[in-house]
Amino acid sequence: MNNNNWRLSVYFNPDCIPCVINQALRAAKLFTNGNKNLQLKILKEVCEEVKIINEVFTAPHFSAVIQEIVEKNVKNENLYKELKEKNIKIVEQFLPLLQKKMEDAEDKLEESIKIAILGNTIDVGANPNFDIRDEIENYTSEDYSPVNIEQLKNSLRNAGSILYIGDNYEEALFDKFLLKELDEKDVTFAVRSKPILNDITYDDAVKLGIDKISKVIESGSRIGGTDLNYCTKEFIEKFNSADVVISKGQGNYETLLDEARPIYFLFKVKCEAIAERSKSPIGSSVIYYNNSTAQN
Amino acid sequence: MNNNNWRLSVYFNPDCIPCVINQALRAAKLFTNGNKNLQLKILKEVCEEVKIINEVFTAPHFSAVIQEIVEKNVKNENLYKELKEKNIKIVEQFLPLLQKKMEDAEDKLEESIKIAILGNTIDVGANPNFDIRDEIENYTSEDYSPVNIEQLKNSLRNAGSILYIGDNYEEALFDKFLLKELDEKDVTFAVRSKPILNDITYDDAVKLGIDKISKVIESGSRIGGTDLNYCTKEFIEKFNSADVVISKGQGNYETLLDEARPIYFLFKVKCEAIAERSKSPIGSSVIYYNNSTAQN
Repeated sequence: MNNNNWRLSVYFNPDCIPCVINQALRAAKLFTNGNKNLQLKILKEVCEEVKIINEVFTAPHFSAVIQEIVEKNVKNENLYKELKEKNIKIVEQFLPLLQKKMEDAEDKLEESIKIAILGNTIDVGANPNFDIRDEIENYTSEDYSPVNIEQLKNSLRNAGSILYIGDNYEEALFDKFLLKELDEKDVTFAVRSKPILNDITYDDAVKLGIDKISKVIESGSRIGGTDLNYCTKEFIEKFNSADVVISKGQGNYETLLDEARPIYFLFKVKCEAIAERSKSPIGSSVIYYNNSTAQN
Repeated sequence: MNNNNWRLSVYFNPDCIPCVINQALRAAKLFTNGNKNLQLKILKEVCEEVKIINEVFTAPHFSAVIQEIVEKNVKNENLYKELKEKNIKIVEQFLPLLQKKMEDAEDKLEESIKIAILGNTIDVGANPNFDIRDEIENYTSEDYSPVNIEQLKNSLRNAGSILYIGDNYEEALFDKFLLKELDEKDVTFAVRSKPILNDITYDDAVKLGIDKISKVIESGSRIGGTDLNYCTKEFIEKFNSADVVISKGQGNYETLLDEARPIYFLFKVKCEAIAERSKSPIGSSVIYYNNSTAQN
């Protein structure tokens, strides 16, 4: 743990600053009904907060700062509720197609892992212009490290207990295929403890019926990632004891990457800073293992 | 004149904020030799200054704020000197091609106007990724309002005195063709009073031999545009008395657009805010006349 009481890893890159300010602009425009004065007020408040950034600060922490400023200014504490419901209706249309892919697959565990990563395309923070229809229709199986997927499959087959750290709400419909493949294991699905961006909350998980396949717990996180300094005791215990931890999405990657315990990070690369850090180009599907020497 | 003592026109749009922060990032990266701590320091100072923006503030004013912060941090008051010299060497390679266009043109005044606008492609502020080679090679004459160009030609033919407000240094090599066409008129070419971005200064104009074709005066401006509140008496007198005023570039457009006197703005559209304001798509070549009822 460093002097700033952060235990974080993908340091805030100067390149991230225009990007988060742009994220703030998009949020401001989305929730202010064209009120440019209010947009300017929000952006000024966001820029004022840039001073708190230091070299061990991550983008998901700053996204939470942005969201608090927008919430306060537009007097709405569940900003993305409507957008999430709109997105999920779109995703639901593709469930039969994904179901067919699962039925046709020879290796159903592998197929469900690929579908779970594909779901990470959905992101209103880093990349609001995702086109899930296009992603699903142009989805191929070529896009993964075969070594890592074999290792992950082996780890999952041998695991008794699994912690699955969820990411976005809509994405969880894709995660369900993998959760179903793992339903004989002791799987815990962790969600955020407040609505942040389009991330999944406890109520969201219940709405999608995830509680019928896995245990669902709140992580304690109120940012679009997982900062262990702010997680619940229950989550930390599970994080430390699970045979396998799966972390979905870029925000969880940014905040958990340097943790000592082995973690499988499943995500789509959405920006240059993460492309550089993960050595995978923007748009690629990643299975990133942070501890290649660990046994699991 | 408004309460803030500004007499400005293209108001700072909330959309401009991530754009100017991005401009600050580019400048920080360009002049800090990869020192990320210094880049972060510069960006924090720039974000701190966003609070001074109000609804009558323009992007060129903020660019000047950015440049002062970068200059102070990297201890260099002529940041873009090398880049300007590098760019001008590239532009010089194309002079024979432009000269040939002039020789082949039936209407040399019209051709020189088009070349002058083409030169406005060069911009390290709004659009550092310009490709002047590509622009020149793909240059066509289709891209202008025929009504406006006829009107401008008539105005120039009838004018005794002309004020030509310059913009970028490298661009002035393109302006020279038009200045030469006007050499029987009383033409004054106005330059910035300090090196701001790649804008042309007095020394630059002399280096390009513009003083041999036109009078050259400093406008007093220390921003990448022309705020009359800060211009010299000599410039203001010329601005008020000239039969025709030509204003080159987006920065001059942003700061002079709402002036009462008729002005011909010649520029390439480089961002969405200006595209919206000028009703011309990004990349288009514009001859914008701010006073269609005035006689000149």
